Amino acid sequence: MDASAVAKQFVDFYYQTFDSNRQNLLPLYRPTSYLSFEGTQHAGANDIVEKLVSLPFQSVAHRVSTNDAQPTPSGEIVINVTGQLLIDGESNPQFFTQTFVLKNDGTNFYVQNDIFRLVYA
Amino acid sequence: MDASAVAKQFVDFYYQTFDSNRQNLLPLYRPTSYLSFEGTQHAGANDIVEKLVSLPFQSVAHRVSTNDAQPTPSGEIVINVTGQLLIDGESNPQFFTQTFVLKNDGTNFYVQNDIFRLVYA
Repeated sequence: MDASAVAKQFVDFYYQTFDSNRQNLLPLYRPTSYLSFEGTQHAGANDIVEKLVSLPFQSVAHRVSTNDAQPTPSGEIVINVTGQLLIDGESNPQFFTQTFVLKNDGTNFYVQNDIFRLVYA
Repeated sequence: MDASAVAKQFVDFYYQTFDSNRQNLLPLYRPTSYLSFEGTQHAGANDIVEKLVSLPFQSVAHRVSTNDAQPTPSGEIVINVTGQLLIDGESNPQFFTQTFVLKNDGTNFYVQNDIFRLVYA
């Protein structure tokens, strides 16, 4: 398994989906998944996607600056992304970092762990 | 296991050690560990610490802004840190993000995965 290739494909798909229709992220999480979003904790696909859908903006665009991935001994993939967020058409980006742990259910990778933080510079 | 408590204790100890004597980070890694440092790949405790010791600054201080942690189903702990770096006494901080996966060897937690990136804002 090439962790970097999986990470590239996953991250592209994740943000395309996030930026077009956040509700469609639901199949990427499972009942065992965790999200930490700016310090708040959410568990399970339904709670996680409810949180993401409730974020108070109409439109968002993620621009990925870096995407680093490594395998773990248990066959998971850990990813750290840095990038910029453009919210509601504003021209001043916000900077963010996001950590994912992807796990394979036998057929597909899903998001086991997800930690999101804005970076205030 | 309280992932946040382990993460707090680990991150404090890791940066205290990094900022005082990087060579002393060696016991925190194992032969199976990985480091991605600004996009370069290093594997195994010796190569990883050699890289960290070779970084071209005399003094460094890490200031942690956020430290988020979650457990994984395989009993690991995934951590995302954001913070500031002050290098060689400069007053303008650089911003960074670092992702760790900690694994327990039965007695202690060690660093299985480590991804470091500066964030350019």
